[in-house]
Amino acid sequence: MKNIMSSNHELAEKNREYFKLNNICAVNVMASPGAGKTSIIVDLIKGISKYSDVSVIEGDIASSIDSDKIENMGFKVMQINTGGGCHLDANMVKEGVNALKPNKDSIIFIENVGNLVCPSSFDLGESLKMVISSVPEGDDKPYKYLSMFEAADMVVLNKTDLIPYIDFDKDNFIKGIKALNLNAPIFEVSCKTGEGIKELLEYFRSKF
Amino acid sequence: MKNIMSSNHELAEKNREYFKLNNICAVNVMASPGAGKTSIIVDLIKGISKYSDVSVIEGDIASSIDSDKIENMGFKVMQINTGGGCHLDANMVKEGVNALKPNKDSIIFIENVGNLVCPSSFDLGESLKMVISSVPEGDDKPYKYLSMFEAADMVVLNKTDLIPYIDFDKDNFIKGIKALNLNAPIFEVSCKTGEGIKELLEYFRSKF
Repeated sequence: MKNIMSSNHELAEKNREYFKLNNICAVNVMASPGAGKTSIIVDLIKGISKYSDVSVIEGDIASSIDSDKIENMGFKVMQINTGGGCHLDANMVKEGVNALKPNKDSIIFIENVGNLVCPSSFDLGESLKMVISSVPEGDDKPYKYLSMFEAADMVVLNKTDLIPYIDFDKDNFIKGIKALNLNAPIFEVSCKTGEGIKELLEYFRSKF
Repeated sequence: MKNIMSSNHELAEKNREYFKLNNICAVNVMASPGAGKTSIIVDLIKGISKYSDVSVIEGDIASSIDSDKIENMGFKVMQINTGGGCHLDANMVKEGVNALKPNKDSIIFIENVGNLVCPSSFDLGESLKMVISSVPEGDDKPYKYLSMFEAADMVVLNKTDLIPYIDFDKDNFIKGIKALNLNAPIFEVSCKTGEGIKELLEYFRSKF
């Protein structure tokens, strides 16, 4: 296990160097299954592509459902199937980048396998860890999945349109994150209504 | 890795023998984070406790939020924190059972860590694998998380009360399960409205 982690770390460092050298912002997108990773990526690349080159790596255990969606919109995308594996690793990202050949000064979104546990332990060489949580999952997630929220550079709370129909204590959710992580900004969005997507896009534009 | 799996399998066989010998039905409850595992267990033990002894093992990476809830209702419960681990294993279940000492002819619910990937590979010696999926996670889950739905002895679709507010294609969800698993019955429930809980309870009563 130690060997796997150290060899992954070495490869991740190489990815990181490559991204820095080419001024590519690589965003590792992590969340539970069905939290809305693909929907948020779709909304972001639609906006970002107006001023910068974007590409996407789609990680899934099986299927090409998500990459088909993005390809049909005309964006550069590469599907990686882990064949049972519960997370992406640095080598998979390297292969994805080799195939996609993202432009210099661009943004690449890397959608990890839907899993709020394992992906947080595997460095991909990313520039930024974006953790998405969604209202129907409940406000207690930061109290149960500590490493993920500790590791986050930014947190997105998705599906805010469902708040009227669900017992979700937003203050408790935010308090849980703040107890672990004082640096990560928290964004509230709904991919269904579009609420909050503008602010998320502005954050990316101002930072990268 | 092979050694870990084979030593887990040996321990799981011992758990299975113990459950058989004592006529205990051990239910391994698996799902994504926030799909409603605890809520469904709470509804089931409220009903089952009228005619049988019940107890609960609560598996989480951290916190005792779920076990506190069940303890406050007056039921026998044991919290197991995996300390970062992404699934329960047979040894943790053995420790839980040793502490809880469930009665003969009883039912024990084992709530696994919220994770739609890793728990499906770890035999706990359970009598029954109950996989829960929830409407807001989307209808594509059986197409992406194959092993979990393949392994299921029964599938519960939770949060059906949210169907009016979400694009969820129930036929596609059921088709995906049937393609992997023709034997697992599928139940539709809402812990919020109580819809379908009676049918789920009747299934448990008829089977165990």
